Amino acid sequence: MADAHSLDALTEALRRLPGVGAKSAARMAFHLMQHDRPGALQLAMALSQAVDQVQHCELCHTFTEQRVCSTCLDPSRDRSQLCVVETPADQAALERTGAYRGLYFVLMGKLSPLDNIGPHDIGLQKLFDRLGGANLPKLESEFPLVQEVILATNFTAEGEATAHVIAQALRETGLQVTRLSRGVPVGSELEYVDLGTIAHALVDRRSTQG
Amino acid sequence: MADAHSLDALTEALRRLPGVGAKSAARMAFHLMQHDRPGALQLAMALSQAVDQVQHCELCHTFTEQRVCSTCLDPSRDRSQLCVVETPADQAALERTGAYRGLYFVLMGKLSPLDNIGPHDIGLQKLFDRLGGANLPKLESEFPLVQEVILATNFTAEGEATAHVIAQALRETGLQVTRLSRGVPVGSELEYVDLGTIAHALVDRRSTQG
Repeated sequence: MADAHSLDALTEALRRLPGVGAKSAARMAFHLMQHDRPGALQLAMALSQAVDQVQHCELCHTFTEQRVCSTCLDPSRDRSQLCVVETPADQAALERTGAYRGLYFVLMGKLSPLDNIGPHDIGLQKLFDRLGGANLPKLESEFPLVQEVILATNFTAEGEATAHVIAQALRETGLQVTRLSRGVPVGSELEYVDLGTIAHALVDRRSTQG
Repeated sequence: MADAHSLDALTEALRRLPGVGAKSAARMAFHLMQHDRPGALQLAMALSQAVDQVQHCELCHTFTEQRVCSTCLDPSRDRSQLCVVETPADQAALERTGAYRGLYFVLMGKLSPLDNIGPHDIGLQKLFDRLGGANLPKLESEFPLVQEVILATNFTAEGEATAHVIAQALRETGLQVTRLSRGVPVGSELEYVDLGTIAHALVDRRSTQG
């Protein structure tokens, strides 16, 4: 638009959203201005408030509006287990299963040497501090220490590398370190499962008398 | 997230963007909070500014930050031609061709009886006022009146219906009313063009002796 600079600026800002290219951004900006200005104001408010209020839990680094998140403070959770995930979204997926009652530690992403993301960038030192009991806020100092670390990073090349690095680093600590099992997804037919997955499911096969 | 309500509110607000579902909205919210808080603030600011400053041109109803847009005020444009489009995005597409030097009128969408969108909702009365010279701001009263109306609504069912309604309404006015030509897209092979388009291209065929 020749003379709607704030519309251009809005289109530019919308492009910073993941998965939004130039065309989608323009379409979103037009839509908001033409059909949904209340929605635009609501979004502006929500963005400011989230930036203002959402912080990282001091213990597990998930998103929270408190100093320590409600999961970490929940007395009914099993404090001997710590599940390491890449993102708060992964944590949310695990929570939805209802199958895990331990605590979490959320990394700031995954190792990715190609993108210049190393151990420091994803907060590994914070994980080691957490496991060693160092730097625990006073509030938490009487908590029993973690005994098992469950590595639940993604089963991608980067996620596997991240799990490997953490497992190596924890080898001498005496902590039990486990990894989510690989295998054939529930409900799937072998014919349509990729070969790498089937190969892993063969190697990791378990006794049915277990 | 159990205790990040502002994150939930942000996800909810992002879902108002066209083409963004629950999963994308959550991914966008996580991304902004984890990796791009400056981007979130920039977007919040851009949204507020756009809502505050972007208005509709009094003459052609495109987006502008002035009372009358720069296209309508441009003395080099041909004031006898008025091209009717559905959205500012369509106008932008026509402008990028560089093939049109007349003025525009931007409808607020297209007729869509199924969605309860009638002539009043898309600003047809404003178009007729514009063509009749009624309600023109003083600034514009000495402009020569439009002689040709070029209907450039989309070639969809709704766009065609909109063009048809406008053409009918203008039949008695003595104005020349034209429609963008239908036909085979430039650069395409007949084999891959849909049959309706080929049929129209046959009906609308033109003499090569020009």
